[in-house]
Amino acid sequence: MNEDQRRLSEGILFTDLYQLTMAQLYFHTGMHETSAQFDYFFRSYPDYGSHQAGYCINAGLAWLLDWMQKAQFGNLEINYLRTLKDRKDKPLFGDDFLKWLQADTPFSDITMYAIPEGRVVHPNIPLVIVQGPIVQTQILESSLLNHLNYQTLIATKAARIHASCHGQSMLDFGLRRAHDKAANAGARAAIIGGANGTSNVGISKHLGVQPGGTHAHSVVQAFIAQGKSELDAFRAYAELYPDNCILLVDTIHTLESGVPNAIIVFEELKQKGHKPLGIRLDSGDMAYLSIQAAKMLDQAGFEDTQIILSNQLDEIVIWQIITQIKESANRYGINADHLIKRLAYGVGTRLITSSGDCALDGVYKLVAVKDRNSWKPAMKISESPDKTLNPGQKKVWRIYDNQEKAIADMICLQEENPLELENLRLHHPSDHTKHRTLNKSQLSKIEPMLVEVMADGKLTQHLPSLYEIRKQREKDLSCLYSGVKRLMNPHHYHVSLSQKLWNLKQSLIDNINDDEN
Amino acid sequence: MNEDQRRLSEGILFTDLYQLTMAQLYFHTGMHETSAQFDYFFRSYPDYGSHQAGYCINAGLAWLLDWMQKAQFGNLEINYLRTLKDRKDKPLFGDDFLKWLQADTPFSDITMYAIPEGRVVHPNIPLVIVQGPIVQTQILESSLLNHLNYQTLIATKAARIHASCHGQSMLDFGLRRAHDKAANAGARAAIIGGANGTSNVGISKHLGVQPGGTHAHSVVQAFIAQGKSELDAFRAYAELYPDNCILLVDTIHTLESGVPNAIIVFEELKQKGHKPLGIRLDSGDMAYLSIQAAKMLDQAGFEDTQIILSNQLDEIVIWQIITQIKESANRYGINADHLIKRLAYGVGTRLITSSGDCALDGVYKLVAVKDRNSWKPAMKISESPDKTLNPGQKKVWRIYDNQEKAIADMICLQEENPLELENLRLHHPSDHTKHRTLNKSQLSKIEPMLVEVMADGKLTQHLPSLYEIRKQREKDLSCLYSGVKRLMNPHHYHVSLSQKLWNLKQSLIDNINDDEN
Repeated sequence: MNEDQRRLSEGILFTDLYQLTMAQLYFHTGMHETSAQFDYFFRSYPDYGSHQAGYCINAGLAWLLDWMQKAQFGNLEINYLRTLKDRKDKPLFGDDFLKWLQADTPFSDITMYAIPEGRVVHPNIPLVIVQGPIVQTQILESSLLNHLNYQTLIATKAARIHASCHGQSMLDFGLRRAHDKAANAGARAAIIGGANGTSNVGISKHLGVQPGGTHAHSVVQAFIAQGKSELDAFRAYAELYPDNCILLVDTIHTLESGVPNAIIVFEELKQKGHKPLGIRLDSGDMAYLSIQAAKMLDQAGFEDTQIILSNQLDEIVIWQIITQIKESANRYGINADHLIKRLAYGVGTRLITSSGDCALDGVYKLVAVKDRNSWKPAMKISESPDKTLNPGQKKVWRIYDNQEKAIADMICLQEENPLELENLRLHHPSDHTKHRTLNKSQLSKIEPMLVEVMADGKLTQHLPSLYEIRKQREKDLSCLYSGVKRLMNPHHYHVSLSQKLWNLKQSLIDNINDDEN
Repeated sequence: MNEDQRRLSEGILFTDLYQLTMAQLYFHTGMHETSAQFDYFFRSYPDYGSHQAGYCINAGLAWLLDWMQKAQFGNLEINYLRTLKDRKDKPLFGDDFLKWLQADTPFSDITMYAIPEGRVVHPNIPLVIVQGPIVQTQILESSLLNHLNYQTLIATKAARIHASCHGQSMLDFGLRRAHDKAANAGARAAIIGGANGTSNVGISKHLGVQPGGTHAHSVVQAFIAQGKSELDAFRAYAELYPDNCILLVDTIHTLESGVPNAIIVFEELKQKGHKPLGIRLDSGDMAYLSIQAAKMLDQAGFEDTQIILSNQLDEIVIWQIITQIKESANRYGINADHLIKRLAYGVGTRLITSSGDCALDGVYKLVAVKDRNSWKPAMKISESPDKTLNPGQKKVWRIYDNQEKAIADMICLQEENPLELENLRLHHPSDHTKHRTLNKSQLSKIEPMLVEVMADGKLTQHLPSLYEIRKQREKDLSCLYSGVKRLMNPHHYHVSLSQKLWNLKQSLIDNINDDEN
């Protein structure tokens, strides 16, 4: 792929054809300057089969905004669009439309409100609200969904894996199994969600983190194939990296060869005044092998060297390993808590692909259109009540109880201000029988969640650093009750509509149903 | 991300840190010019949970080769590597190593043999064999795995979905749920595997296909919000796209509103001399709704308009829809076969993410090292016999029976030529009790599978076009017995070792075990 083809496939034409054919339709019917609002939200938490998320970690916004700032209908793009044909071999796009499209930057009139990255988020809550001429807001759809769905999916998975690591370090090792270049966006999202770093070298520069890693089996194999030994390979590695020495001990036999050889090399390092870092286990029964390896390391006086685990890890596998260590370490004379505190984790495939549920079901839906000077809510009824849209212009508030725990997110109409109300009446978003009322005395805080990030196509916020995003994630997770964070069958966090939004939604449903009859 | 950061994160540093630290180790120990061979292979077919693949479609090679041709250790890369530090804050990489790294192109001495894209492939078969100086072959690992694992995964999924479509058209609609930019590589792989095109505009240019699509609910919603109607929206669309008119009929009510309005517009188009293309269904009971929609379209005289289905489709969902149509269409006076032949499919999330199994377990393993002038097989024993490597330099042959069906792939030592043998003795790769002997009279063809694609870092083959790759895939699939292609619990295709390779593997295992004792 040459540079032009790359630009063509990653710039403004990184989109579905129908965004452009619809844009031409709006242009053709004179609707193209009509203001519209689209909401981005997801409908359900990732469900990994045997386990389920009870929250998501919002991510991807900065990369979307970066893409928006650069995407252009240049000559390259317009010339390509000009070659597209309909079934009768006539041009699909008219010259008038293409000329108009090229005249301005694609998102020059867009205003955007978003929930910041790193925040805990929930289904049906608008995470991003996009307002602007309908052509601009429509054309944004595909790329917005692409950028936000993936990073939120991975940040969520990373937060779960991080939660099962007992505070120990966890690195992204997923580049080799990532979906093409998603290795880079995935590394970023993993770090937002809780990974401490990544093995991925190039993207580490952009992310401002030091890349990490150990070595592979091939080093030991190569030494052996040349008539040398595992010990020779370890010695050579230790000589070159005396202060970064982590040795992979399972090329031949973990306990009979790898660990004893590592200990010999660690002793040599120690004599030279270096501190050996640790070993890595990449196969077998990780809990059993870490206990046995810890025992051997302890006996040799290396009580503090790390034991890094890798190989098909995820939140459940790590949880199982730790459970098994807690149950059985004592039997071998090993203190389980001490062992758990010397573990670290290299997590690959199952993190970078969100194994078990590899797509967030985020959607981008038209919810309001300006007709003359007033906004009209736009509605779509679905055969499934859960999928019926929340129409109109909205705000999102998070409600904290007197223990300063978040207990509900509430979607209101834009003009509503829950801070002014004594009682909050919260409606279930689709079930008319479910609602509850909270008195302000029961609450410690009502927090607005959406902030303006773009006005007239320009950023209006200094975007937070990766460090700040991670701090936000930590803070938000500390405000969740532990039931919501449970790895399996988590407690259901409340997402509610205000009374006014509920009424609007109901009246629009009634209108559409009346029109049909 | 600026242009430098992009290049840094997608060029030669699109790799795991350990490839570079190992490279420096080889350099430091004077092994860097040692010739090595790495094999790329996957260990098991994708297993989607309730269904499993019985073959894979090989894909991704052309993009890997393209990446290899461009990747360079330029000043940008070297300067970044120079900033990396160890735990004592000393430089991780020495100046001598970095200078040497920058002196040459990264893969200038690599020779590569590969099974061509589009071919049916099986576990444990070397799909790519890489030979060259150990530093070059080692550094290639991460990117090779990234490029080949994903596209093979998606081409395989696409082939399965295509197989369930009864020869009808199937388009990739996955951009919005793809993992970041993998939407582009995924579109390519989908087309290799069987998709007829993609909605993804930009990449279509590079792939040489016309992008496809219909329209979204938002058009209908926007018209309604402005006081107009679904019919108005359809009319406007038909006026602009009279020869490409596919109408999405489920915004309000599929059978009571969408289809009747589409028929009105189709009649108007017909009167103006245009041929309406069809409708799209995006929700509800697809089998029931297509039967009812077909009935209404037939009655209005539109027997040939397409019915395009979308919404969470995959091979099993499509199979279910078609089965239901076959069972129930007749009851409504609709000919099932005729209806099935007017269906087409837009397949998104489950194709582009390979839902159910979102990573191919492809690995890249050192299998031989040159010591002085002779190649020495490199071995790694695993605790699981299935994972023990097939060592040494090898060739792959495909064996066809007298019905010209492929019945086994055989891995031989390089010096073996099965064409010269009267009887082929085929060993199970890990189970010593399983082998069989085939007499040449039972066979119609023995075909070499690997071709040289690169020598001394330069392409030695004109790479096949996407069209040729698709033809190859069709041909290979037609040579598989249908049991192997079954969507669930497929018949097990034989992957075998020659007697000589079996003996070599066994002797190396014995050697390593002897050394340990």
